[in-house]
Amino acid sequence: MTRWEPNARGRLELAALELYSERGYDQTTVAEIAKRAGLTERTFFRHFADKREVLFYGAGMLQDWLVAGIEDAPAGLPPIDAVGGSLEAVARSLEERRDLARQRLAIVTATPELQERELIKLANLSAALAEALRRRGVPDPGASLAAEAGVAVFRVAFQRWAGQAAGPGDLGGQTLAQLIRDSLAELKSIAAGK
Amino acid sequence: MTRWEPNARGRLELAALELYSERGYDQTTVAEIAKRAGLTERTFFRHFADKREVLFYGAGMLQDWLVAGIEDAPAGLPPIDAVGGSLEAVARSLEERRDLARQRLAIVTATPELQERELIKLANLSAALAEALRRRGVPDPGASLAAEAGVAVFRVAFQRWAGQAAGPGDLGGQTLAQLIRDSLAELKSIAAGK
Repeated sequence: MTRWEPNARGRLELAALELYSERGYDQTTVAEIAKRAGLTERTFFRHFADKREVLFYGAGMLQDWLVAGIEDAPAGLPPIDAVGGSLEAVARSLEERRDLARQRLAIVTATPELQERELIKLANLSAALAEALRRRGVPDPGASLAAEAGVAVFRVAFQRWAGQAAGPGDLGGQTLAQLIRDSLAELKSIAAGK
Repeated sequence: MTRWEPNARGRLELAALELYSERGYDQTTVAEIAKRAGLTERTFFRHFADKREVLFYGAGMLQDWLVAGIEDAPAGLPPIDAVGGSLEAVARSLEERRDLARQRLAIVTATPELQERELIKLANLSAALAEALRRRGVPDPGASLAAEAGVAVFRVAFQRWAGQAAGPGDLGGQTLAQLIRDSLAELKSIAAGK
């Protein structure tokens, strides 16, 4: 008999991030995550293939949203702005997850296996964005370079956003969307030889 | 008793690339590499820690040269051009290794473990270039973005160069240095919204 568990996925994610932060990723089991969330292991496996997927299912969604954003961009928009616009739109849907993103970033940074996985996800993201640009008629190497530039902008902005410490002197007021705009402007300025 | 083996490293590298291409990376042993090169396993291990290092020792040298190139760039040169100049200078020392690079690229692309290693090396390279730029007084996020842009330019150019097929209609005449200049020009054009 399957019981309906309200927001089981969200509860499992929160429990996993807490445990990974407290004990380390390697030392945490699925059984402990389920217990902390007040759910069963069976429920865990209805939502995630394994304990690593808790940290990476979001990256898959992100990629789908970013590709859709490029597909929906007005025809004739320069590739870099199609990418930038999509990044900003997606950023707005992530703003409320900043505390989770900060926790996740610390966990991934502390675990080589997870860092490798993150690099693979980012390489896949870049390939998917380049493919979306080619479907818009952007030829290579421009499509690949615009995609790589977009991923670099996102990565730099995301790390500043998720790495922000609370307290005086921080960048607390800056949203991810704002940081993405700033990073893209900075990339344009750098590329212009400034 | 240690015998002096002329160009043992180069012979081992050639033998390894041949065997990885013929049988696959996973199916090749150090004993087989040494035998193909006409050398002993002992000699292999004087040059490489393991069979993977044959494919990646060059990446470490590349990083050292690129960092040195940035350090030697004239003061006041814009960061993107300090990076571009260093990439081009290093490219000139790689030109004669195109056949090896092509073989290596095919092997790395065919083996997930090696692809991951390659991504880690590229992430390390980007971090090292960003650090070299910061030492020149380039503030973040500009240093990180210029470094990421440089790695993207290098990667795109290197793949075109090493992926070139021989025969009519290919880019056979293009050197790596030329492809890097073209990729950088394309990145600048993309970033300018073209």
